[in-house]
Amino acid sequence: MPGGLFITLEGPDGAGKTTQIKYLEHFFHGQGMAVVCTREPGGTPLAEAIRRLLLEPAYTPIDGRAEILLYAAARAQHVAMRIRPALASGEVVLCDRFIDSTVAYQGYGRRLDIEMVRRVNEWATGGLLPDLTLLIDVPVEVGLARLRQKRDVDRLEGEELEFHRRVRRGYLELWRLEPERIRLIDGRGTPEDVWRRIKGVVEPWLEARVKGRDG
Amino acid sequence: MPGGLFITLEGPDGAGKTTQIKYLEHFFHGQGMAVVCTREPGGTPLAEAIRRLLLEPAYTPIDGRAEILLYAAARAQHVAMRIRPALASGEVVLCDRFIDSTVAYQGYGRRLDIEMVRRVNEWATGGLLPDLTLLIDVPVEVGLARLRQKRDVDRLEGEELEFHRRVRRGYLELWRLEPERIRLIDGRGTPEDVWRRIKGVVEPWLEARVKGRDG
Repeated sequence: MPGGLFITLEGPDGAGKTTQIKYLEHFFHGQGMAVVCTREPGGTPLAEAIRRLLLEPAYTPIDGRAEILLYAAARAQHVAMRIRPALASGEVVLCDRFIDSTVAYQGYGRRLDIEMVRRVNEWATGGLLPDLTLLIDVPVEVGLARLRQKRDVDRLEGEELEFHRRVRRGYLELWRLEPERIRLIDGRGTPEDVWRRIKGVVEPWLEARVKGRDG
Repeated sequence: MPGGLFITLEGPDGAGKTTQIKYLEHFFHGQGMAVVCTREPGGTPLAEAIRRLLLEPAYTPIDGRAEILLYAAARAQHVAMRIRPALASGEVVLCDRFIDSTVAYQGYGRRLDIEMVRRVNEWATGGLLPDLTLLIDVPVEVGLARLRQKRDVDRLEGEELEFHRRVRRGYLELWRLEPERIRLIDGRGTPEDVWRRIKGVVEPWLEARVKGRDG
């Protein structure tokens, strides 16, 4: 498949993105397609090292602009060294978080300069956008409750409930602005429930895309 | 001294910036002023960690945009957490490399997008510029020969002679654009020779500045 497919998963921690990426990987393998699973921040050795800096308590407080620039640096490296080469080989790239996370968390959540967040990231990625973004939406309380069953909350997750509410509103605003690229998935229920909903979006989307390319 | 003084040293590796910062520190101490000596990339724990990423061979090749964003992230943290607080306390900040290094090395040397390099860095620093920049100029061959006596060359220093010539031309172009802020210092001869030239610039500059503030 020339040009590959770039699909991102978005939503809060606790939405079930990691599990759904595994279902998606299995689904695309079943279609005979080569799949790369990756995540942000991360996906290359340098970008994973930047991720560790961002999560390391010894480096707090991190200046808001420094944080935006670090996420953008990790993304530039990830896009240049991993995502673009995979897409050029016709592979399916499944990425846990991408540019929408930055706008939702840094822009809406932390209320940093949204316009500059966008501009820096557009430049960092050379304008690359996902072909499809699955936004798994769960009420803030549900996402946090799922997380607390699994592990101690880290720096981002330890912040106020109001922050997470702003992030969710930010995601929903992004979906309203780009309903073609971003598809809203109800993240409540079991992982199997959520997968059925995702499959219900991805199957017809893939079919339409293959038809569009062939015809 | 309200507002402090922000002085940067620029020039190639091997120009003698580290030695001259020590002379400057001693000079300002002699004037009864509090001095902070720092460097870029670095100057805070996070920014020093970013510096290590930039110099770590395991992370090469680094995408050009990722590199620009990492330098800018380190600078944002350094300005917010160290330089601005020191200036607000009325201290003299002596910094080994700042924004002119980025424009000379990434912009002119690597021929990356100079306009975006400038814009990202202006945003990262909130527009902070040095009060005075001492550009220590030496012929490319002299700088490299001094370096090779001292240590193995690292990634940047191992690059082609032509790269270093472009950096030098870039620095001289910056000096021509801002001759008031940037003062050109002949870096040839002994450290004492260079210090005499620097003192010949800094003493009258400081006197004029103090007079300007008092009068």
